[in-house]
Amino acid sequence: MEYRYLSKIKSPEDIKKLNKNDIDTLCEEIRGCIIDTVSKNGGHLASNLGAVELTVALHRAFNAPQDAIIFDVGHQSYTHKLLTGRFERFGTIRTEGGLSGFMRPDESEYDPFVTGHSSNSISAAYGIYRAKRINGEDGTAVAVIGDGALTGGMAYEALNNAGGARSNFIVVLNDNKMSISRNVGALARSLTRMRNKPRYHHFKFAISRFLLAVPLVGRALNNSLYRIKEAAKGLVYRNNIFTSMGFNYLGPVDGHDVGAMESLFKVAQTYTRPSLIHVITTKGKGYSYAESSPKNYHGVSPFDADVGAAVSKKETYSDIAGKTLCALARADGKICAITAAMTSGTGLAKFASEYKTRFFDVGIAEEHAVTFAAGLAKGGAKPFFAVYSTFLQRGYDQLLHDAAIAHLPIKLLVDRAGIVGEDGESHQGIFDAAYLSTIPGMTVYSPCFYNELEALIIKASCFDGPIAIRYPRGCERKNTGFKYRDEDYTVINRGGTRAAVTYGRIFANVSEAAERVGNTDVVKLNKICPIDDRLILELMKYKELYFYEEGIEKGGVFEHIAARLLENGYSGSITLRAIPNEFVPAATVEASLKKYGLDTESVINDLNGENK
Amino acid sequence: MEYRYLSKIKSPEDIKKLNKNDIDTLCEEIRGCIIDTVSKNGGHLASNLGAVELTVALHRAFNAPQDAIIFDVGHQSYTHKLLTGRFERFGTIRTEGGLSGFMRPDESEYDPFVTGHSSNSISAAYGIYRAKRINGEDGTAVAVIGDGALTGGMAYEALNNAGGARSNFIVVLNDNKMSISRNVGALARSLTRMRNKPRYHHFKFAISRFLLAVPLVGRALNNSLYRIKEAAKGLVYRNNIFTSMGFNYLGPVDGHDVGAMESLFKVAQTYTRPSLIHVITTKGKGYSYAESSPKNYHGVSPFDADVGAAVSKKETYSDIAGKTLCALARADGKICAITAAMTSGTGLAKFASEYKTRFFDVGIAEEHAVTFAAGLAKGGAKPFFAVYSTFLQRGYDQLLHDAAIAHLPIKLLVDRAGIVGEDGESHQGIFDAAYLSTIPGMTVYSPCFYNELEALIIKASCFDGPIAIRYPRGCERKNTGFKYRDEDYTVINRGGTRAAVTYGRIFANVSEAAERVGNTDVVKLNKICPIDDRLILELMKYKELYFYEEGIEKGGVFEHIAARLLENGYSGSITLRAIPNEFVPAATVEASLKKYGLDTESVINDLNGENK
Repeated sequence: MEYRYLSKIKSPEDIKKLNKNDIDTLCEEIRGCIIDTVSKNGGHLASNLGAVELTVALHRAFNAPQDAIIFDVGHQSYTHKLLTGRFERFGTIRTEGGLSGFMRPDESEYDPFVTGHSSNSISAAYGIYRAKRINGEDGTAVAVIGDGALTGGMAYEALNNAGGARSNFIVVLNDNKMSISRNVGALARSLTRMRNKPRYHHFKFAISRFLLAVPLVGRALNNSLYRIKEAAKGLVYRNNIFTSMGFNYLGPVDGHDVGAMESLFKVAQTYTRPSLIHVITTKGKGYSYAESSPKNYHGVSPFDADVGAAVSKKETYSDIAGKTLCALARADGKICAITAAMTSGTGLAKFASEYKTRFFDVGIAEEHAVTFAAGLAKGGAKPFFAVYSTFLQRGYDQLLHDAAIAHLPIKLLVDRAGIVGEDGESHQGIFDAAYLSTIPGMTVYSPCFYNELEALIIKASCFDGPIAIRYPRGCERKNTGFKYRDEDYTVINRGGTRAAVTYGRIFANVSEAAERVGNTDVVKLNKICPIDDRLILELMKYKELYFYEEGIEKGGVFEHIAARLLENGYSGSITLRAIPNEFVPAATVEASLKKYGLDTESVINDLNGENK
Repeated sequence: MEYRYLSKIKSPEDIKKLNKNDIDTLCEEIRGCIIDTVSKNGGHLASNLGAVELTVALHRAFNAPQDAIIFDVGHQSYTHKLLTGRFERFGTIRTEGGLSGFMRPDESEYDPFVTGHSSNSISAAYGIYRAKRINGEDGTAVAVIGDGALTGGMAYEALNNAGGARSNFIVVLNDNKMSISRNVGALARSLTRMRNKPRYHHFKFAISRFLLAVPLVGRALNNSLYRIKEAAKGLVYRNNIFTSMGFNYLGPVDGHDVGAMESLFKVAQTYTRPSLIHVITTKGKGYSYAESSPKNYHGVSPFDADVGAAVSKKETYSDIAGKTLCALARADGKICAITAAMTSGTGLAKFASEYKTRFFDVGIAEEHAVTFAAGLAKGGAKPFFAVYSTFLQRGYDQLLHDAAIAHLPIKLLVDRAGIVGEDGESHQGIFDAAYLSTIPGMTVYSPCFYNELEALIIKASCFDGPIAIRYPRGCERKNTGFKYRDEDYTVINRGGTRAAVTYGRIFANVSEAAERVGNTDVVKLNKICPIDDRLILELMKYKELYFYEEGIEKGGVFEHIAARLLENGYSGSITLRAIPNEFVPAATVEASLKKYGLDTESVINDLNGENK
């Protein structure tokens, strides 16, 4: 495909000069470029295709980077990247050293804030907005947030804080009617009602009339803005959740009509109250496969663009978790499952359809999810909350306060634990072992293989007190004969005078390395929290200990063990490999494991004394 | 005071038999008992006085414990305690081994859930509600939440999840127009508008008419309920934030009219949609001092009930923090301060009045507060977020994701760090050193004395990257000559062959003990994260090391140090005192310190070898 227009866009200024036909062609080229690149690199597709015109309109109406535009989550920021000087590098997206799949301030001055986790954009943008006022600088700030992200509580906290104050702060609601999958909850129903009001069409008509009559740039602008503003005023709904929060509500407006959105964005800048502009977009727009099945094109692996993405058939840890839960639920009517808007990501699709009354998709609301689970547990049900490690960070206080103080038997299925690969810094699951182990009474298991995961989920179903089972993204590594037993740790005794201690997925690497080098026992931790005194005594026997931890070192499992060893007067040598005090950028899982010395080769080198 | 009625109430069943006059007397007795007890033990006063009739009405309309009633935060649950078999023990409230000042399931079957942190009651109650349905049990669940707690995002997550579903789940909004201090944000303005609608009075009238005409118990009940229900229907507002979330909105109703509330609570149980009942109460009701100055009677120390509570004049760490910030703000127009509804608690009252445009009370919204601070920092302002250690747990993900990945210079003033005393398990500030140190690039200081705190706040104002300064509740301990220098750690060299290592408030204890026993150097950590390699080398010199940490052991500062010592082959002896894997119940600070071996006497015993 030829990118006649797109290749000439060096900054958003360049798209302000284009006429309507040029814009249409540009949007077509952007779509082509996104489909082409995502089909090669994998990434988020449907959400980006839905936000093409919206992003073009934003960059025509606002002056980035003086106006700070923050895309919530940032998985829909590909068009933004293409329009802000990153077209040439776009082919490197989601590769090691390449562009991030999310917004990253160290990548471009047009990315004002780190994105990746949901529902934070309004808080961040409002902070930037207030800083501009404090500094006496010009410009505004815009948060672009999806209807799914709006189910996250911190979005409300931010609306409540920003609402009503004298400002021209702007929130754009990118309503694609489904977030990642079907949107849930009462708010979704409210949005549906707003979308379906007949005024939508009147409004479209009114705006179109002005657009036909008035040049959007040039000397008539002020006058036309005034008229659009007056027209828009009459269309503001007086009573919805956004007006309750003190926002002007404008819309809904067609999210694929650049001119209509541009006008509203300009109008909103002239108000002295914050505005929320409700934009309706179609996920997957312009790519038939994605339009008809947007859920399958949310995040995709590389695929053939001409025939569409194949749904992966390879079984993952998530699938095993979902299957095991279904089996449990069949036998026990108290088993329930909770997801925070990640039904398919966490393998719960089948559970959701088979056990409707015991399945709860609570929206992107990990705080609520944890406490809701605690309530279910208190009431005598057996709640499993399946959640990505990185997102569970949102529920840290709720785990401590709502679940652990009363020692309630909630069960956490901590998916995507460890290094996740191409999603980079914002999504790594490297903190859970550390933060979960600060919680009194919390038990944490870290299986390596599918059969362990299955056994542990069954164990969890009748466990007393809060319990977490953490497992990585993707598929299990080759199991060369390890059989899980219900014990806190397993010693693979090869008569060694030294031991390599590890847990989780990388046990497969460490075990293989130990076997190849020889003279090395392997201690596989099944339970990583709390650490048993017997384990410490076991480890005291060895003259050399090698620790391998796929997680942050500070507060990690091996620091707990180290403190106990030290108290017990351990005097042998210690080698510790874990993730140091840094965030892990995008790269393949294998590349990251190698970087931190957690791959088979690095372990072999350690054991051969080559890394000293 | 004589408690003629109150002393006979053994369970909520006993108040269902009382007539209107009896109820009035009972409420009077409850108020007297609360004032009397709080004036002796300290505790929450104004909120409890405001919720007397509300609680009586709840226990008349519902059947606890089958119906689960959860008071959000729980600081207004004193009447609930008095009515549920705890009158005899009420004098022990907030003392070691006595009743908790919040709800505690291990205290009574009438306390369904641990409370203390705000905004979680709807999640918990909805979980319990759903569990009842899963188990096929009778009964409903009721969350009683204040207007202040409603500014917390997880309350919305829960409303969104619970709203619209077929259920008779009930939320009672206890609207006292101010939460802890003046309520803030757009929502507060919305509530004001709802309160002031003329329909309120019509509604009161309609309800009163029914109450006069109809006995509330007896055979006419069903019929009268039906009529009240029909009347109430017409009064439901169709368009407010609660109806947007799929709730029936009932009210507002006078929160000191037991009969009116009782009717509505009964009506709500008959609906097949969740209801929100808007109850208007007066904080401090019935105690003139508290009514006229509710803010000063939110949480109080013991006082003379006849003359009212004296505002404490003793300067605290919080006061020092506030004063220092004011001084900084005078000189530097970019300094701003953020609080999550704790303006006076964190010592920011003066800042708030002097630097209005740079002061942000964001509501009970720690998640938003952290990210808002990150936005301010990104925009070039210098944001200080003053927050209690225990509440900052809510912002863990935001610290990691929104502040630390981009290394944004937000400044955290972590108040109430360490043991807090009578508030107990839910409020201890014992986790921050652990969870903050898991965050890459986070710097944490832990001053002991006021002059250090002041110096560190000044240092923080121009620090690069996220920084936290943590300090305890209350007043500094006696400083016997320690002078703070701008260094990571200070060695008080007494020519010892051993060292006692510590940080924060208990340095005063450890230092005194070391001086009294002799032959002991003291290493005072000023910066507790990250730990400097030089410190490890310094510690390697000693044959015996004693560690004292007023915080959770797992993931705490000394585990980090232990791991480094072990890697470096330390072979001396180690004694480690910290808070083990448990929650710390209510007791005086001194009693808790003693329990964990962190008071002067215990340290002396350690150093004398008497605890071996």
